[in-house]
Amino acid sequence: MVSNAIVTGGCGFIGSNLLLDLVRRGFTCSSIDSMIPEYGANLKNIESMIHNSSINFNISDIRDSSSLQWLLKDAQLIFNLAGQTSHMDSMKDPFTDLDINARAQLSILEVCRKVNPRIRIIFASTRQIYGRPHYLPVDEAHLLRPVDVNGINKLAGENYHLLYSEVYGIPSTVLRLTNTYGPRMRIRDSRQTFLGIWIRNLLLGKPFEVWGGSQLRDYTYVDDCISAMQLAATSEQAIGQIYNLGGCGEPVTLLQTAETLVSAARSLDIPIASKPFILRDYPSEHKKIDIGDYYADYRKISHELGWKPEVSLFEGLTRTLSFYSSQIEHYL
Amino acid sequence: MVSNAIVTGGCGFIGSNLLLDLVRRGFTCSSIDSMIPEYGANLKNIESMIHNSSINFNISDIRDSSSLQWLLKDAQLIFNLAGQTSHMDSMKDPFTDLDINARAQLSILEVCRKVNPRIRIIFASTRQIYGRPHYLPVDEAHLLRPVDVNGINKLAGENYHLLYSEVYGIPSTVLRLTNTYGPRMRIRDSRQTFLGIWIRNLLLGKPFEVWGGSQLRDYTYVDDCISAMQLAATSEQAIGQIYNLGGCGEPVTLLQTAETLVSAARSLDIPIASKPFILRDYPSEHKKIDIGDYYADYRKISHELGWKPEVSLFEGLTRTLSFYSSQIEHYL
Repeated sequence: MVSNAIVTGGCGFIGSNLLLDLVRRGFTCSSIDSMIPEYGANLKNIESMIHNSSINFNISDIRDSSSLQWLLKDAQLIFNLAGQTSHMDSMKDPFTDLDINARAQLSILEVCRKVNPRIRIIFASTRQIYGRPHYLPVDEAHLLRPVDVNGINKLAGENYHLLYSEVYGIPSTVLRLTNTYGPRMRIRDSRQTFLGIWIRNLLLGKPFEVWGGSQLRDYTYVDDCISAMQLAATSEQAIGQIYNLGGCGEPVTLLQTAETLVSAARSLDIPIASKPFILRDYPSEHKKIDIGDYYADYRKISHELGWKPEVSLFEGLTRTLSFYSSQIEHYL
Repeated sequence: MVSNAIVTGGCGFIGSNLLLDLVRRGFTCSSIDSMIPEYGANLKNIESMIHNSSINFNISDIRDSSSLQWLLKDAQLIFNLAGQTSHMDSMKDPFTDLDINARAQLSILEVCRKVNPRIRIIFASTRQIYGRPHYLPVDEAHLLRPVDVNGINKLAGENYHLLYSEVYGIPSTVLRLTNTYGPRMRIRDSRQTFLGIWIRNLLLGKPFEVWGGSQLRDYTYVDDCISAMQLAATSEQAIGQIYNLGGCGEPVTLLQTAETLVSAARSLDIPIASKPFILRDYPSEHKKIDIGDYYADYRKISHELGWKPEVSLFEGLTRTLSFYSSQIEHYL
């Protein structure tokens, strides 16, 4: 099957939203996803697409390079989103994180070099590689000093993409995502941002925990994230470049984020706990890998590709809650 | 056997010189070396020490974590020098480079965390992780943008050390070495700096090739490198820090380096070819991973640990040539 676009991690949060968008734009697509329960894949995410003949859902692991040789052979474009995203899991099992976020990325690039060196690659990196900001907002020239194994391995994965673009001419672009949220995210636990577990608890009428509260963050609604990926994929100028994504509007504290989430729930008349969240100190085992305040300077992608986030945090959280409130059972 | 100090890569160039120095200082030592022919190990390097009862020469690979558990258990200090050093080899076989320079480093640290979390670690990193300098001299705050797979993986290895120091309190120091040279280096080929192959050809009466010629470089004589390692190992202040090493005197061009090498040979009355070297253009397959001019700003280690390189390039090359001229057959 000839695919125009491949999405690794296509059954996960961003991947499934991206597939919906690609199909809407007329692409023939393949999803490569390992469906590992601890990661982002969820069959519900792709339910509406599963019988769409323009998408091939291939269950396989990006660590399996022999399958990759077949899957990547004829594609024009790959959105390379598959990864292990949990910071805590990367500290508990650093080798699995290394194998997925570094070794498998190298393997994807080696396969491209051998069987399809003209494939256009968009790689989803993360703001985690900056570590604790030395200044705010953080631009792409900020020092990289990851504070967890996940950040170190994602940095290696990013570097391989830039290197293979430079040395072998495999045209790649790196997007450094910040907290991305929206429908189809994992809310079972906090493996994909803390917002997941907040939303879960809120919708189950249980208080969620806000750790610290004063840390500044920026959030990208998933549709904005996808529009950045589509812009990057169609830009010659973006080849070999790194771009920060950022949040819509001013950065907000965790406490303000919690309050915005509660307001969004109230605007939808969702029944919530009388005391919807609890402020508590940062747990000690998490504190060492906490990055403090963070928000991105995303002027580079704005100037060069014309991207800016359009969906406010309140609007984005409202859409997200609305998505889950009718079908939360599939995401627990 | 209880060892005070462990040297990974102990049969290699810097490792064997370090062992000689450690024994002189009264340490009980273990060397861990895989003796892989393409890397730096050479039995001749350790010949004088092999029957010294204060050194245990353990042949094993740092990728073998089960051996590491035994070997690292009781040590107080580890000089972690084992690595794959060839830039070209890392491009030809990126996975082996990844396994040695990243995965095995993580494995060493995981073993330390489990069996010996108070072990003091000195990690030998490389200037290669900076990539092409944006300014000169390059200080430790310079952006990291490796230009080959080796640089990417060494960066991950370095980052793991800093992370485990920060999060788990395993006291580690990172030294970013520049071109290190001296007795016991690999001269069979250019896998450990181009100086190796230059020295080999010179001593065999064959012209060596100078690629380009105008690139600036700095060189650390191995004794200076070892004194930096010893200073770092005994400094509390050095824990969690990164230090550049640098060269003695002004940076020199490749052409000046070649001329200095020829002068050193002449000062020792070593017979050399009438035209000892040939200037040629940089080969295209190497050009893409060349870093251009480089020399380090090593003021941080000077101020904090009182280190400075003492051996001039002429003096160091003279000592090196003198070492090889009487026993080159063991290094061919």
